[in-house]
Amino acid sequence: MIDLTLAGTGAMTPLPDRWLSSLLVRVRGELILFDCGEGTQISLKRIGWGFRRIAAICLSHHHADHVAGLPGLLHTIANAGRTGPLLITGPPHTRDVIAGLRVIAPDLPYPVEVCDLKGGDVFALPGGLQGSVAWADHRVPCLAYRADLARARRFDAEAARQLGIPQHLWRRLQVGERVTWEGGATEPDALLGPNRQGVSFAYVTDTRPVPGFATFLAGVDLLVCEGTYGDDADQAKAIRHTHMTFAEAATIAHEARAGQLWLTHFSPAMADPAQWLSNAQAIFPSSVVGSAGIKTSLAFPEDEASDPELPVL
Amino acid sequence: MIDLTLAGTGAMTPLPDRWLSSLLVRVRGELILFDCGEGTQISLKRIGWGFRRIAAICLSHHHADHVAGLPGLLHTIANAGRTGPLLITGPPHTRDVIAGLRVIAPDLPYPVEVCDLKGGDVFALPGGLQGSVAWADHRVPCLAYRADLARARRFDAEAARQLGIPQHLWRRLQVGERVTWEGGATEPDALLGPNRQGVSFAYVTDTRPVPGFATFLAGVDLLVCEGTYGDDADQAKAIRHTHMTFAEAATIAHEARAGQLWLTHFSPAMADPAQWLSNAQAIFPSSVVGSAGIKTSLAFPEDEASDPELPVL
Repeated sequence: MIDLTLAGTGAMTPLPDRWLSSLLVRVRGELILFDCGEGTQISLKRIGWGFRRIAAICLSHHHADHVAGLPGLLHTIANAGRTGPLLITGPPHTRDVIAGLRVIAPDLPYPVEVCDLKGGDVFALPGGLQGSVAWADHRVPCLAYRADLARARRFDAEAARQLGIPQHLWRRLQVGERVTWEGGATEPDALLGPNRQGVSFAYVTDTRPVPGFATFLAGVDLLVCEGTYGDDADQAKAIRHTHMTFAEAATIAHEARAGQLWLTHFSPAMADPAQWLSNAQAIFPSSVVGSAGIKTSLAFPEDEASDPELPVL
Repeated sequence: MIDLTLAGTGAMTPLPDRWLSSLLVRVRGELILFDCGEGTQISLKRIGWGFRRIAAICLSHHHADHVAGLPGLLHTIANAGRTGPLLITGPPHTRDVIAGLRVIAPDLPYPVEVCDLKGGDVFALPGGLQGSVAWADHRVPCLAYRADLARARRFDAEAARQLGIPQHLWRRLQVGERVTWEGGATEPDALLGPNRQGVSFAYVTDTRPVPGFATFLAGVDLLVCEGTYGDDADQAKAIRHTHMTFAEAATIAHEARAGQLWLTHFSPAMADPAQWLSNAQAIFPSSVVGSAGIKTSLAFPEDEASDPELPVL
């Protein structure tokens, strides 16, 4: 199960009634934040999922409206009592950017681990998520993020009992290891069901459409994607500023066969993004105009309670 | 005439209903901002005095809740079309802090001039204000600011006419120069009235009371001063965190014979600062609990319209 909520939907500058674009994700008790513009921590405070468990912050790129909230948030996470490591990822030179911004957050009670990523990288995110990134197409190096929560194959506890496999070996079988014990040995396949579908989401902002997105984003349950301009007539402006229209974002969701699309990163000139929703829904019906605080949960297709014996890995 | 408005009154962390402490000042069409925590630009947007004319930003110290909003604001000032220089002042190492933060605001269409100050310095602020700073007493180097708008002595235009002084020389007389012309010469004192009182304000935050404040702040028309804790019972906490109670701030206002006191920089733990106002008013009756958007104007004691001939210098 993954819980997701938007912390903001703005672009360029924070407005009195619109926080900058940011996505907060909760998985297995860990929090992951995507982008952190000025004021994001105020929106997070309102959402109320807490600060101490923020274990990773993933930056799309280094424009101020996506990172300027970092020093303040790092302090607030400290004040909330975090001591465990915090991972910050971003495109090349993220280390330099964090070093610069930490001039006003030099001493923190937890280690900050910065990881510069490049398109094609696959990396571990907290909560057992597998992260992956693809190059976006923006004026500066920018990353599109995808995160997948794999689901373990079903473990046949009854068969394991009948074979007399000691229970402390079950977990190793579940993760695919061969086990031996006094009186026997078995391959994991004998006790594991077929592969099962996991859940996934993606966070894609500050980019033109990229041909590879259809593959990179294939089958995500939730696509959080920029739609800086709602009006199709702003297509030329979208190209000029390396952003997208609602229709372009919806086309990406359609081609990737996403489950749902949350539009975000609205131009400050667009007072009422909802008025353009039909431009997205005409192409991808499950489109939603994002707003701070909207939430959803991505659950495994089958009830997790069907695996009572072992924690899902 | 100086217009002043509070952009925020918070301490430590921005809250959904309380922006961080900041003061915006308008004088002769120029804007000066005192401190710039995360979210200050959002509050400024609501105040509506614009961004293009922000000509100076004065930092009390380098704690994040007083400076983290800088990179975002620098971008917003750029987007508003500023091309003239922007002065940033602060305690020693302000240059380094600005250099660090500008990692996400490297290219601006206006020059940024950073000036490191130390207690005792007197410097020019935009709009003809004379700035001065004194050391505050905080955990890190911190400055208390005072700004004075001097008033020119009254120029006796009638006498100048009778003496036959050419009108293009009047301005030089008004600023205190001796002038000569075909057929005469005169000292400025002959045409200038007695000294006249100007107006002044001060911005003092993140400090314990300092003995020299009574002199440094003597006679300011408006003292904007931190009162992190309203309850007298929090005195020990105030000492421990190098802040002040309302009563201590009011004592400073009283000793300096200030015109009015605006309390600000409220601890996030203090939900309703107004409930402690009486602790300040018992010592200094003209105390006000600050809130974002409160405004005042400091006008010269005599009507400026009494100087119709020349612009006030």
